[in-house]
Amino acid sequence: MTWNLRSSQIQADDLVYLVSQRRKTFILRLEPGGEFHSHRGIIKHDEIIGKPWGVRVTSHMGESFLVLQPSLADLIRELPRTTQILYPKDIGLILINMSVGEGQHIVEAGTGSGSLTCAFAFAVGVGGRVTSYDVREDVQRLALKNLQRLGLENRVTFKLKDIAQGFDEQDVDALFLDVPNPQDYVEQARQALKPGGFFGSILPTTNQVTRLVAALRAQAFDLIEVCEVLLRHYKPEPERLRPVDRMVAHTGFLIFARAVQPGSVDISEPTGMVGSDVPGMIPLEENDKEEDE
Amino acid sequence: MTWNLRSSQIQADDLVYLVSQRRKTFILRLEPGGEFHSHRGIIKHDEIIGKPWGVRVTSHMGESFLVLQPSLADLIRELPRTTQILYPKDIGLILINMSVGEGQHIVEAGTGSGSLTCAFAFAVGVGGRVTSYDVREDVQRLALKNLQRLGLENRVTFKLKDIAQGFDEQDVDALFLDVPNPQDYVEQARQALKPGGFFGSILPTTNQVTRLVAALRAQAFDLIEVCEVLLRHYKPEPERLRPVDRMVAHTGFLIFARAVQPGSVDISEPTGMVGSDVPGMIPLEENDKEEDE
Amino acid sequence: MTWNLRSSQIQADDLVYLVSQRRKTFILRLEPGGEFHSHRGIIKHDEIIGKPWGVRVTSHMGESFLVLQPSLADLIRELPRTTQILYPKDIGLILINMSVGEGQHIVEAGTGSGSLTCAFAFAVGVGGRVTSYDVREDVQRLALKNLQRLGLENRVTFKLKDIAQGFDEQDVDALFLDVPNPQDYVEQARQALKPGGFFGSILPTTNQVTRLVAALRAQAFDLIEVCEVLLRHYKPEPERLRPVDRMVAHTGFLIFARAVQPGSVDISEPTGMVGSDVPGMIPLEENDKEEDE
Amino acid sequence: MTWNLRSSQIQADDLVYLVSQRRKTFILRLEPGGEFHSHRGIIKHDEIIGKPWGVRVTSHMGESFLVLQPSLADLIRELPRTTQILYPKDIGLILINMSVGEGQHIVEAGTGSGSLTCAFAFAVGVGGRVTSYDVREDVQRLALKNLQRLGLENRVTFKLKDIAQGFDEQDVDALFLDVPNPQDYVEQARQALKPGGFFGSILPTTNQVTRLVAALRAQAFDLIEVCEVLLRHYKPEPERLRPVDRMVAHTGFLIFARAVQPGSVDISEPTGMVGSDVPGMIPLEENDKEEDE
Repeated sequence: MTWNLRSSQIQADDLVYLVSQRRKTFILRLEPGGEFHSHRGIIKHDEIIGKPWGVRVTSHMGESFLVLQPSLADLIRELPRTTQILYPKDIGLILINMSVGEGQHIVEAGTGSGSLTCAFAFAVGVGGRVTSYDVREDVQRLALKNLQRLGLENRVTFKLKDIAQGFDEQDVDALFLDVPNPQDYVEQARQALKPGGFFGSILPTTNQVTRLVAALRAQAFDLIEVCEVLLRHYKPEPERLRPVDRMVAHTGFLIFARAVQPGSVDISEPTGMVGSDVPGMIPLEENDKEEDE
Repeated sequence: MTWNLRSSQIQADDLVYLVSQRRKTFILRLEPGGEFHSHRGIIKHDEIIGKPWGVRVTSHMGESFLVLQPSLADLIRELPRTTQILYPKDIGLILINMSVGEGQHIVEAGTGSGSLTCAFAFAVGVGGRVTSYDVREDVQRLALKNLQRLGLENRVTFKLKDIAQGFDEQDVDALFLDVPNPQDYVEQARQALKPGGFFGSILPTTNQVTRLVAALRAQAFDLIEVCEVLLRHYKPEPERLRPVDRMVAHTGFLIFARAVQPGSVDISEPTGMVGSDVPGMIPLEENDKEEDE
Repeated sequence: MTWNLRSSQIQADDLVYLVSQRRKTFILRLEPGGEFHSHRGIIKHDEIIGKPWGVRVTSHMGESFLVLQPSLADLIRELPRTTQILYPKDIGLILINMSVGEGQHIVEAGTGSGSLTCAFAFAVGVGGRVTSYDVREDVQRLALKNLQRLGLENRVTFKLKDIAQGFDEQDVDALFLDVPNPQDYVEQARQALKPGGFFGSILPTTNQVTRLVAALRAQAFDLIEVCEVLLRHYKPEPERLRPVDRMVAHTGFLIFARAVQPGSVDISEPTGMVGSDVPGMIPLEENDKEEDE
Repeated sequence: MTWNLRSSQIQADDLVYLVSQRRKTFILRLEPGGEFHSHRGIIKHDEIIGKPWGVRVTSHMGESFLVLQPSLADLIRELPRTTQILYPKDIGLILINMSVGEGQHIVEAGTGSGSLTCAFAFAVGVGGRVTSYDVREDVQRLALKNLQRLGLENRVTFKLKDIAQGFDEQDVDALFLDVPNPQDYVEQARQALKPGGFFGSILPTTNQVTRLVAALRAQAFDLIEVCEVLLRHYKPEPERLRPVDRMVAHTGFLIFARAVQPGSVDISEPTGMVGSDVPGMIPLEENDKEEDE
């Protein structure tokens, strides 16, 4: 594998993350005899191979570049794409809210450019499995290439199939729908998920959220949670610490729910119950004792 | 292990997450013959054991409870604690930004109540390792108990030691400082990290961030990133979709950096370079083509 | 008038804002011989009368109180109320976006507890006029009392009338709807507004916003703007500067629009036009050259 | 005056706000015989004069333009500038928190491009007065031109003077410092303000806020409040309601305080008191009963 985060020294075939002095970033694979060309000059791969990670190299035009292993977040942000990707800020919450970990089986639709596929494949480990549905073959070809770059392709099965027909899998640990009309596949998702399994989705508009939440409440899902993650960066200047001027205002609303036993839920009555409060907020009010420094 | 996310059916000794109709939540371990008591009535564990996850049970007072496996986020939010915990919203970004995954070795200080310890132990898998430093024995005892509850205790080594003396480890993949004065341990962190390794910290005040960023810039760290994560929940009511009234306005500022080769960095000059832009923002401006629905 | 912001010295009949050491706040009117009672002790009004604003007085139990004139924001925040009030953060933007100023005629419905009525009455000055509609008499009685406290009652006309019947006024400068179903009164609002006049509304749910925006687009309004204002406070501690722990996550979505000439607008086609961008964002992208310190 | 918000019909010499179909915006003054040229075509001023506000006119190239009176917010956003301006979102809160209204006397330094000067001059009405200090003559010339455009120049006195020497005024109602080092002029501000008067400032970095708050606490100011205003726009599409993709993440931190009687304050002890809570948050916790729709 060529994206081995446990390595200390740069080797041929490694995936590297080059960062110029002006913070232009590049991801490439090192080949003996290879060259990296940018308008800031040329760097020979052989100058990098054998060095420890974190080294700085200088192009023939005098520009310095930092050489690092890309993090999962770096790779996702810079993923070659034909469709919108999910952002690390959202993926981080998805992984932890859906408890994605070692050895699990995760199903997603659609594949898209594979940003979430990569994150799922990373998180389930060598013993885990990701099944990814899409109806566009070109999209899955790109996602496969993206996974191959990270050496994660063996953990993923692509299926070129309309999920309206249902998922082939059963008893999966978690299922994520990144499609414009997830409300149409809630029943199919329920069939694929194991009892109590984790459902997730991301949607850009409030209208879509309204439709999905209504469908989830009608079809044996509960603990429905709708939220959004806002990430604000600061300029890392000790003497002039301040937020950056612009930020991403919106990527999507995240929707989470748990598959509950069909028939055991009385969905008709519980407007007050399901909606009156938000699971994530309860422990905060009780436990959030502030502890300054 | 009793928190096996891959299971479909509830068994004795399982960790369960009970959610009442009014969204009161409880985490408990099932024992044959055991009873759960709340002011909403009693539930016999034996009524739950053997059922599929996601079942609803009714107390002798008629209150219905949903029975689920707790997610990693649920467990962290409800962790027994004596100190401030980290929140899932921050932990999610930490895991993905620091690329924490299978088989890695992570070091943290201090242990605190073990919320981050649990997340690291979950993410590194059975082949990974977490070493956690603190100077308070009582704190580590609680953290150990919290890990045992999740069956993750074998992945973690606790060290009762002042990190001013340095870390015993070398070549670790990622190191996280959750202490009030991380600027005093930047050199020690640098020694423990492998070349290019991931550094992270969380701090409540801007004054602390200023001190840490200055120390990182002075001691062979680069790609310094300061950010904060804001999580906003919505009431999941299809016909009255809206944000909840209150939210957590602040948990802490997250600081990330990469260990770069000592000596290779000219830290003195590059105010413009390091601070002029923020890594996370660059790809956004180039790639964030909006794709509505 | 007894809330004369131009005064320097405290006089009998003045409205005062008492702030205790623990930041408990009280608004009262001074009367010769009067007494202020709280569980922190008694203060005689005569000890305050004649002193300059900003003085500190001590109760018979030794608690110190700061004596100030209330600001408009203080008064609004502490308004006696039976219904939800608007917050200063939202009112500030409403006043400036709708250009409310001296000598104008503003119409609002409903009156509610009169928080926005007070702000409009303050902003239009002695030569201006506010007309406020509601269907509940008790609500208007309280609003009148709130205005009288500020000495602003002469600028406001209350009308106890269902606005479905239309507004009595014509050619008004600005009109604000603080009702749950503003989409039902868009035509009436259009009739009351002068050509080019300012329309505003505040709504808690996204579903309501959807309905109002659709109605505005169908009925000779343009430059429709939907936004929300988030206000985050910091603890004013120089050495531990940080955001407070909790904040108001949502009060309402603000909707602004301009009345345009009926017939002159082709509403059917312009999805791309109206929605493709937001007026407030345009100048930012062109002009927001950052100027650090 | 040519920016008379009370008018219904467009007249020669009026300030108009042209908005193209693609939301390009222009502010200009109409002159008989004049022409407006853009790359979307020419519009003769005489075609507009005499029409009601809100009319749509079509350029000779077929592009439709909406003709409106500019709001105060529109004018501020599009102010010709050589320095950073304040944004309407911040100005709205400043006006309401500092209770700026009819007949008051406001002092500010520095003048900058005059965005805040315009807002203050608008809010104090014909009977009010604004005094604006700066050390750069060119800056004040531009600010004067900006005021003249709005017909507000008679309400403002410019002073070309270093405020380190103190302000000439006394007993002013409110004073605003928009300079990089306001902590150096806190004593001068205290001298100019009336007892209990309103102090305000805006600063981009946390380090500056720290310095100012320390100075305010040392020099007879109290009720210190530090906050920031975040404004998020939504795309006004009924069927695809969602936040816009990008937003302004930071303009500045707002600092407010009240001038309290010198000598009457024990500043040395009250860390707990002044900092333990935030004035604006108190009433929210007591009064913020949610009232859905």
